[in-house]
Order: sequence, then structure tokens, then C-alpha cells
Amino acid sequence: MTEFTSMKGFRDFLPDEMAARRDVIDRMEDAVRRFGFREIDTPSLETTELFRVKSGDELMEQMYSFTDKGGREVALIPEQTPTRARLVAFNKTLSKPIKWFSTSKRWRYENPQKGRLREFYQTDIDIFGVDSVAADAEILDVTAEIMEALDVLDAVTILINDRRLLEGILSAHGVSEPRPVMEVIDDREKMTREEFVDELHELGMKREKAFNVDDLVAVSGPITEAFEEVEELAPDAEESQQALDRMRELIGELEARDVADTVEIDLSIVRGLAYYTGLVFEVFDTEGDLRAVCGGGRYDGLVELFGGQSTPAVGLAVGDAPVEELMRREGVWPAEELETDVYVLPVSDAERSVAQELAVELRAEGLVVETDLTGSSVGQQLGYAEKIGSDQVVIAGSRDLEQDAVTLKDMDSGDEELVGLDAVVDEVLDRVG
Amino acid sequence: MTEFTSMKGFRDFLPDEMAARRDVIDRMEDAVRRFGFREIDTPSLETTELFRVKSGDELMEQMYSFTDKGGREVALIPEQTPTRARLVAFNKTLSKPIKWFSTSKRWRYENPQKGRLREFYQTDIDIFGVDSVAADAEILDVTAEIMEALDVLDAVTILINDRRLLEGILSAHGVSEPRPVMEVIDDREKMTREEFVDELHELGMKREKAFNVDDLVAVSGPITEAFEEVEELAPDAEESQQALDRMRELIGELEARDVADTVEIDLSIVRGLAYYTGLVFEVFDTEGDLRAVCGGGRYDGLVELFGGQSTPAVGLAVGDAPVEELMRREGVWPAEELETDVYVLPVSDAERSVAQELAVELRAEGLVVETDLTGSSVGQQLGYAEKIGSDQVVIAGSRDLEQDAVTLKDMDSGDEELVGLDAVVDEVLDRVG
Repeated sequence: MTEFTSMKGFRDFLPDEMAARRDVIDRMEDAVRRFGFREIDTPSLETTELFRVKSGDELMEQMYSFTDKGGREVALIPEQTPTRARLVAFNKTLSKPIKWFSTSKRWRYENPQKGRLREFYQTDIDIFGVDSVAADAEILDVTAEIMEALDVLDAVTILINDRRLLEGILSAHGVSEPRPVMEVIDDREKMTREEFVDELHELGMKREKAFNVDDLVAVSGPITEAFEEVEELAPDAEESQQALDRMRELIGELEARDVADTVEIDLSIVRGLAYYTGLVFEVFDTEGDLRAVCGGGRYDGLVELFGGQSTPAVGLAVGDAPVEELMRREGVWPAEELETDVYVLPVSDAERSVAQELAVELRAEGLVVETDLTGSSVGQQLGYAEKIGSDQVVIAGSRDLEQDAVTLKDMDSGDEELVGLDAVVDEVLDRVG
Repeated sequence: MTEFTSMKGFRDFLPDEMAARRDVIDRMEDAVRRFGFREIDTPSLETTELFRVKSGDELMEQMYSFTDKGGREVALIPEQTPTRARLVAFNKTLSKPIKWFSTSKRWRYENPQKGRLREFYQTDIDIFGVDSVAADAEILDVTAEIMEALDVLDAVTILINDRRLLEGILSAHGVSEPRPVMEVIDDREKMTREEFVDELHELGMKREKAFNVDDLVAVSGPITEAFEEVEELAPDAEESQQALDRMRELIGELEARDVADTVEIDLSIVRGLAYYTGLVFEVFDTEGDLRAVCGGGRYDGLVELFGGQSTPAVGLAVGDAPVEELMRREGVWPAEELETDVYVLPVSDAERSVAQELAVELRAEGLVVETDLTGSSVGQQLGYAEKIGSDQVVIAGSRDLEQDAVTLKDMDSGDEELVGLDAVVDEVLDRVG
């Protein structure tokens, strides 16, 4: 007989594991909802063509794509952004700002290894239709609120940069083709200074200039201080000055929103090259392995590529695996255990109807209630009640019932008390409320 | 420029549509959780082999299966039951009863048409490891609670039958091979009496006997009355008498759980043939098109097929499409609209910081709060506030702010009131609480 397991890179979540994961997702989504982001849901499968528009070769290669029974080239979505772009492009009358979130599954056909899964959860949060810095600030504010909701705000820093500003600074410092240089910058945190300079040298840059670039992108720190350095570096070109103005304004917005302390400027943040056009940011794990937990940025050109009106956009994506890793290290991953309000325990078969009726009454109050389904002994039932994390146990035995009463056991203290049948629902509600 | 849309049989849910759907899912899951069912989550993709074990030819043909980049035969899950069976089989130390639920996506490669989707949501609810009638009763109780939570309990009847009992009755009435006959019975509701008899005749049954079978499976009605009829029909064979005993016991359990009025016996309920071994049931739309909304039953042999210990099981599956259809017809599908607690409206740019700070304070109280991101006029902002269903609008204007106050507008009544800045959070909480 074959024993079946899930495929590599796919995960089974049993109830205790899922309870922790659900708690984490709920806390994230609550934070996001408070800002007025609205849940959407979209297909798990899209035509492969949809991803050809902009996702870039690397993502295309990693896609869980296939030819379906009808001969269509389709893919399990590796990200939701192209789907969102098509929705915004198609639904032209949506009133702006469009503020969407969704937690759903994504797939990548990657070699499964630690932190690299073939199926994972991702929460995407975007604002479409707003050009202003206020939207950038809102996305950073949401990011901080999520980290706060997950009890990891102290362990992270949100590093921000502006792609146009960085391009301007590089140009002004003699880098004639900033794009390939920015690709190297994107990988900088994985390299030594020597390796970084070597890579730039390979692009045809003189070593001296490469060291200069390394110094430039090393500019980082608390926003007000670092901003002064950036101001000095920024060239007079209009685009750079505009980007500088946006950053100045953003700092003001972050202060009004009380998240300025969580944010730092870091000129080395690039976030890939596929589609970001202004602000880019990463939530950086400052306590641990100094890696990015999640990130996002502004991508104003995307909706147009999908046939829509020109629509500015800024967003954030949070995958479940890096968040779990961070929370576990910080010791704030939720306990993987079950919770139950009440277990109703019939001492013998004779009390099963009464137990059942009590369970019905308690459930009608919204409580999570289990009772015996298996005809187990009192000892077995108490063991089960403990396993499911029961807060209270209502013990229905014949002697108590003769006095129209049951015994109410508090599972934390172990205390038992005789309670009249007509008072037991209120007493349980008092205790678990 | 190509305009992209979702593929046929796949659905996009914009926020208003998703809000209604989320509400429905939440209500279902709350009902299920109250019984102590625990959420699990499992992969969207499994090896095709997993479904070969028992799913039957029809399902195999309808599967969204494909060969992946690594040459594996895989399938987007058409149902979660085989996955659950492999989990129970593999995790041998799980304490019984195992009570699981999950709302997640399923896929079928069917011809898309009304009510037939290629991607849909399904909520699966199962109890593993419990042989007793108490578990059958609990599943029927949960079914009724779900219908109650969706405000459609009055529009449906839960029709129950027992597969072993029906087999026994057919045998006793001279049907030597009950299985193919039961397949015809499964399609009976779509046929006239003539057609039904013809189909049985084609199986080699005499017309007289076929009419007899039609009369037998027509036995139906309120449980106590119909049970008396069934008792008379049931043969003395041990298996039939055991099934009869279970049904008698089940009726008692349903009465203790106060759901007996919702349940009727119907000997024509068969629910396919793939794996049910005892109780089978369907939630039947008695007000409308007389079709099954959802259903389930007992499948005691399944876990063993997946390499596990013999493990009894009983469950229920609810798909989102038939539920939506029923709720819409009954006029109880939730309003597809957005809800927001407060919109904070800065009258001009000068008040944006104050507005932002108020928004931060209100969010800290757990409220859903939006404020201006686009520098819109007062009129535009009020229009947006209405579109997002704001309950209250806090209007921050310079004249009011000179007196350390803002204007609080109730969007329902249209009433406006001047409220001191230090009192506004409490006042809003009072109003939306």
C-alpha cells in the first residue's frame, strides 16, 4: 500500500499549526482593514500571457505554468500584481483611490529548500489611482502597523529609497547607464565590498568610480539625518529635484503619522528592476540575519501596460514564510494549540441527552463547545477536554442531576463547583467571557 | 493592446462582491467552529495518483490535471477528501475524534456554464474516528446550523437515508444486484416515473418490479412517520436491522439536538456510489428548484484505502455556488457594499496633518478609518465617504480648529455637530460602537 504525502515544497497544516497561522493572518488583515483596504479575490490560474507583459524572465522561468487539457498555456499565479493591473485596466469606472488587499496562495516552480516553497501565502496591499506622496506614506504606515500587529516592530526597520533619485545621483556621479549598475546594487547586501567593486568593474566601470558608487549607496540612517546627505548628493536635474521634494514631503507625512522613527533612508535599496518607478522599500530584519522580510514600492506605469488608463500605484507584498521565520526567532509566533470554551462531559450514557441539550444551549451563546461523541469514560473525556484546550468542563452526572445541578470544573485551577442547571449557561459565560 | 480578462469558469471578486462572500464564509465557519471543528489547510496541488485511489472515473475525467515541469502527473484538487484521508492515515497519533473543516478552492475541468465553475470555494467538514451515531447526528446538526447562519433554514429540508438499509430493502424486494439500480436511483429526481422504470428495465428488471422499486424509494417524509414505513420494509437480515437501529438512534439524537424538525427520511437519496457506507444526506431546496444544495454522509472505508488504520468518518461539503444561488433567491444574499466607520475630511491642505493624526488615533481604537490621499475638494471627499459607506465623517476645517473643535457629521441622518478635539474619539466610538 502506497503511503501518500504532500509534494515537496507544499505544506499540510494540521489544526494546531493552522490556528497559529490563522491568528497571524487575522492580525495582519485587521491592521490593513483599519486603513480602509478592501478584500478582493482573484483566480489562482491565469493565462501565461498575462505574466509575459511585465514579470521579467526570472519570474517566467520560476512560474508553475503548464498546458491545460484545452491546450491553453496557463500558470498558477506567482504574484497577484498582473491580475490586479488587469482588473484596474478593465474596470474603468472604479472610484479612486482603489485600496485592495488579499491574502491568498501563490506558486513558484522553484527548487524547494528552506524558505523557498512551491506554494505559499502572500498578502498583497495596493493603492491604485493616487499619485501623491500621501499614498506612499499610507503604504509605509500600513507596513509599520502590520509589523506592530505581529509584535515584531522593534526587530525591524523600514528602509526606503527612491529609484529616480538613485538614478539621478548615479548619473550625476558619472554612471552613464544606471540600470545595469542598479542590478548590481540590488545584490550588494550579499557581497563583500571587493566583490561589489569587481562586479561594477566587469560592467566597464573604473575601480575608483566603483568605490565611489559603493560609498554613495552606503548612505543610510535615520530619515532626517540621512536626508541631508541625500540632498547634498542629488543633482540639479529636474527629475532628481522632484524626487527629492517627494522624499522631503514623505518625511513630513511619516511624522504626522507617527511612524518616522521606524523608517530609515538607505540608498542601496533597489527591489529588482521589473516595474518600480519611485519609492522602493524593504522591511529589514535588524535584529537577526539582516535580510528583507518583505517590501514594496511605487509602480506607476503598470496598469497602462495592461490596456488601462495611466494609473499610479503603490503597494506592499508580505509572504508568510519570512514572517514566520522572523516571528519564531523573536519568540512571538503564536502557540500552536487548540482552544475550546467548554467541554460538556456526560458521566454515563444516561446523561448524554442532557449533555447534548446543554451543548446546544451553550453554542447558541456563541461559545465553542464539544461534547462526547464516542461513549468514552470520564477519564478519557477529561483527557480529551485538556487536549482541545477547554477552558471549562461541565460534568453532567446522575447524582448532581437529581438535584437539578451539574459540576463546573475550571480547567486552569482545577476547582470544581456545583451549579444549578438553570444557572450554568450564565456561569460559564461569566467565566469564559 | 490586448485586454486581459479572467479565464472562463474563473471569477474575479471586487471588494463589494468579496465583502458579501466573506460575510457568508465567516457565518458558515463561525457555526462550524462552535462545534469544535478545527481549521486545517492543505495543498492546492496533489499527485494525480492520490485521486486514483477512489475518486471514480467521472471525477478523474473532470480533474484539472496536468504534467508539471518536472514530469510529475499532478492535479489541482477537485475535492479535499483524499487529502484528508492521507493526513489521517499518515498522522497515526492524532487523538480522536478528529474534527476538521476548511474553506478553500477546488477545481474541475468542466465545461463552464451556469452553476458549473472551473474554480470554486468549498467548505469541507468531517469527523474522523467516530463510529457512533452521535457523529452522524453532529454532522446533521452542523448542517442545520450552517443553514440557520445563512438565513435559509426555512427554505430547505435535510433529507437522510442509509445506504446499507436501502441495499437491504432492495435485496429483500428481489433486486439481486442493488449497485447498478442505486446508480439509477441517484438520477431519479431528474426523470419522470416512465423514464425511471425504462432505465431499470434496461438493467434487466421486469417492469412490474421496476414500478415496485419506484414505490419503495418514494418513501419519504417527517422522520418519525417515515421511519415507521421504513421499519416495515426493512428485511430481517442482520445488516438491515443494524442500519435500522442506527436510524432509530439517530432520530433520538436529532431530537435531543433540537433539529429533528429540519430532517426528513427519503429512501431515494443515494449521493453517488464512490465511497459512502451508511448515512447519506442532502440539503434539499424545498422552496425553489427542488435541487440539492449540498450533502454528505458516512464513509468508513476510505482512510484504510490510503494506508491508514481502519477509521470511520462522516462529513459534509458545501460549495459556494449553490449556496449563493439559494441565498439570492431567498433574498438573503448580503448587500454587496462597502462599510467604513469614519472618514476624516481635511477641508484644505492646511488641515491634512490634523486629519492624519485623528485618523491614527481612531485606527488605534480598532476603527476602519480613511482620510484624504488625493487632495480632493470637500464635495469630492463627501462623495467618496458615501461610496465607501462611511458611518461618520469628521470634518477638520480651519475655523473649527481655531476653537480646538471639528464637525462630526452622521452620514445616515445628515446631522452635523461641533465636537471638541479632545472628545471626538470618544464621541465617534459612541456613535459607531
